[in-house]
Amino acid sequence: MARPTPLSGFPEWLPNGRIIENHVLETVRRTFELHGFAGIETRAVEPVSQLLKKGETSKEIYLLSRLQDEAAAHRDSDSKRLGLHFDLTVPFARYVVENAGHLAFPFKRYQIQKVWRGERPQDGRFREFMQADIDVVGQGSLPYHYEVELPLIMAEALTALRPIGLPPVKVLVNNRKVAEGFYVGLGLFDPQEVLRSIDKLDKIGETAVSELLQQKAGASSEQAAACIELAAISGADESVIDQIRALAAKFDANNDLLATGLVELQQLIAAASVRAPGVVVADLKIARGLDYYTGSVYETVLVGHEDLGSICSGGRYDTLASDGKQTYPGVGLSIGITRLVSRLINADLTTTTRSVPTVVVVAVCDEAHRERSNEVAVALRARGIAAETSPDAAKFGKQIRYADRRGIPYVWFPATDGSGADEVKDIRSGDQVRAVATEWVPAAEDLVPRVVAAQPS
Amino acid sequence: MARPTPLSGFPEWLPNGRIIENHVLETVRRTFELHGFAGIETRAVEPVSQLLKKGETSKEIYLLSRLQDEAAAHRDSDSKRLGLHFDLTVPFARYVVENAGHLAFPFKRYQIQKVWRGERPQDGRFREFMQADIDVVGQGSLPYHYEVELPLIMAEALTALRPIGLPPVKVLVNNRKVAEGFYVGLGLFDPQEVLRSIDKLDKIGETAVSELLQQKAGASSEQAAACIELAAISGADESVIDQIRALAAKFDANNDLLATGLVELQQLIAAASVRAPGVVVADLKIARGLDYYTGSVYETVLVGHEDLGSICSGGRYDTLASDGKQTYPGVGLSIGITRLVSRLINADLTTTTRSVPTVVVVAVCDEAHRERSNEVAVALRARGIAAETSPDAAKFGKQIRYADRRGIPYVWFPATDGSGADEVKDIRSGDQVRAVATEWVPAAEDLVPRVVAAQPS
Repeated sequence: MARPTPLSGFPEWLPNGRIIENHVLETVRRTFELHGFAGIETRAVEPVSQLLKKGETSKEIYLLSRLQDEAAAHRDSDSKRLGLHFDLTVPFARYVVENAGHLAFPFKRYQIQKVWRGERPQDGRFREFMQADIDVVGQGSLPYHYEVELPLIMAEALTALRPIGLPPVKVLVNNRKVAEGFYVGLGLFDPQEVLRSIDKLDKIGETAVSELLQQKAGASSEQAAACIELAAISGADESVIDQIRALAAKFDANNDLLATGLVELQQLIAAASVRAPGVVVADLKIARGLDYYTGSVYETVLVGHEDLGSICSGGRYDTLASDGKQTYPGVGLSIGITRLVSRLINADLTTTTRSVPTVVVVAVCDEAHRERSNEVAVALRARGIAAETSPDAAKFGKQIRYADRRGIPYVWFPATDGSGADEVKDIRSGDQVRAVATEWVPAAEDLVPRVVAAQPS
Repeated sequence: MARPTPLSGFPEWLPNGRIIENHVLETVRRTFELHGFAGIETRAVEPVSQLLKKGETSKEIYLLSRLQDEAAAHRDSDSKRLGLHFDLTVPFARYVVENAGHLAFPFKRYQIQKVWRGERPQDGRFREFMQADIDVVGQGSLPYHYEVELPLIMAEALTALRPIGLPPVKVLVNNRKVAEGFYVGLGLFDPQEVLRSIDKLDKIGETAVSELLQQKAGASSEQAAACIELAAISGADESVIDQIRALAAKFDANNDLLATGLVELQQLIAAASVRAPGVVVADLKIARGLDYYTGSVYETVLVGHEDLGSICSGGRYDTLASDGKQTYPGVGLSIGITRLVSRLINADLTTTTRSVPTVVVVAVCDEAHRERSNEVAVALRARGIAAETSPDAAKFGKQIRYADRRGIPYVWFPATDGSGADEVKDIRSGDQVRAVATEWVPAAEDLVPRVVAAQPS
């Protein structure tokens, strides 16, 4: 084969990058499990008819066809065609409905898998990427307090990555009931349309959004100004609630939906200011593109890396999963693992102490004594010390270079004279000492490759 | 949505099944890392032109197309079209060539990912399934001893699963040089064609294979009989080598290739009989369908579950990866994780002590005291004890049922009178004791869900 070129939007890491990614995955998984979330995986494919129902991402679906079927000019009907999932929420909703009889509700699950979107790749935007999701779904109903807990769990998971160089995060929250209640109170009865325009504030600015609101959502210039004023409100404490109340009073926009939304948002801000001070910020311009959110919505930025976009988003949804008789309301968030890891790697925020798991290379004096070296490696592994036997019986200098090129800290020299007088060398310091394979232990910090911040934070 | 139906060939597990799968994955990963293999992941897609080059599985490729492109009646040229990978060896070979300048050789990697094949699903045969591969590749050359080590590492990984109910395994080995040398020595100069016929022995029997050899490989009936006689040889000790030598002498089929193959096979059997007695068996009928193998080939059966087919296969390949100047010979094996896990689950070989990570449910007396319960959960998690707060302030009986339905062993009752006199109940025994959230520890065997053999083995 000729030297292949990378495919844009399909990132792959070298072994040390994968060690960083694995550390991130293990950290978030550990946090999710400590909070009682059960792990599941769903298949990569869903019927296209299902994928097409769920909001605007659907236009970026990758469809599947079998090479053989194509040759036979045969094509499945649309209801049977399969596409790759573009998120983990839609497959999860299907899994819940399909397996409802076997699950205990409220059902808390995490799911860490790749998803695919046929978009134009950009910095931090990929065609294949890994997501780590948590969701709680109830059967028929779901208490509001989960809308408070879940973003705090994500903040905890992301904060646990600070030691490896991840910048601090800010979780931005809003509540659809607040926004929609306010719009309806103003007299704008297509709140989805208002949200879609407000969602463009960062991209096109206030003037253009005001025009859009007047053209598309039937707003007067005064109503448009009120919507834009609401979106400008943000803050980490409960004074935000007072500001919204004052604005609603000014425009005489109060109603029950707004009142409910304000109670919810207040509860979230109050709890967050106790459990994760400064991390959660109410931001009334957060809209989220997906149509299925009905309560709290969340986005998360890395402080100093806002250009990357949101690295953890989600919200409350009441009608995504339903089997016709029961609905399964839920709330969930999704970490963009690939986006986050690509920044850790490409901005040199994080590094590893070596690129392989091996702690010890066992040297081979000559091929006739390879089995003696294998025995040393077996004895080390039996006590959890990753060890490999040298690929060949080259000069010791070359065998040491084999270790050095991989960052492996120790080389073991087995005695081949029957004396059992083995020695082990720390190739960083050059120190070489007598050692017994059934007893020797490496320095604790050498046992596995460590993932560390590249710069002092 | 109406109640969805499962897609055949795309298995999904309930949470306890996923716990079993995760245990299997962690066990094999741990073994791979102890032996110094570095983990990587490759993208799910490859250019179709690359996939089509690699042997007979290629006819089962799933092709990708973008929904939008299809609407626009636009199609990429064949060289640009993407397909889902059908194994992890072909993408790995591409990864090695693409990143050769950044890798240290011999390069030892493991890779645990899903693959897709558009085949007809059967018991143990899926359209989407997980594989766990190890491979070693050299630059220009690769010592033979890796062909001895790798199947022993797989045997070690699979044997580490015996405590959860996996039956013993037998690794069946053959060497293409032996088979091809013998055929050429007989005067049959299309050894690939002979192998393809021999590969059908189990399916169609000796008589039909003899006819096939005469029709397709130009064999006389005596040559066909010799090939079938060779395929019948099997055994776990070096007497196998003597049998092959005797057969070659009888048919005057000796040559250098056969001699080299016999030395290699003998070395493998000798090492295996020391390091994993009884596990590795020479079986001269093992052919492996893929064309790219050039030395040792391996298949693995679960004893008592031979109907499942091979659960771990692979071999030595010399020409799979090449950039035109350098070749990267390799040897690798792949565990069919989904096949193995599906048998553990469906044959009730393995079970879990519970279906969620949670150790403790913290009860909520009334919603006004939820924060008090949250504090208990935070204190428990801080010491690594998975805890969740009850979903609602229902009667304690109902909150205990919440734990019981999920197999969660403990329920915590926080004092709400300021006394700090919390109590924790083991809901299996009914024992309830005073406890402090910053000190209490569960029984060690309750800390995480355990994966155990369902039946005494």
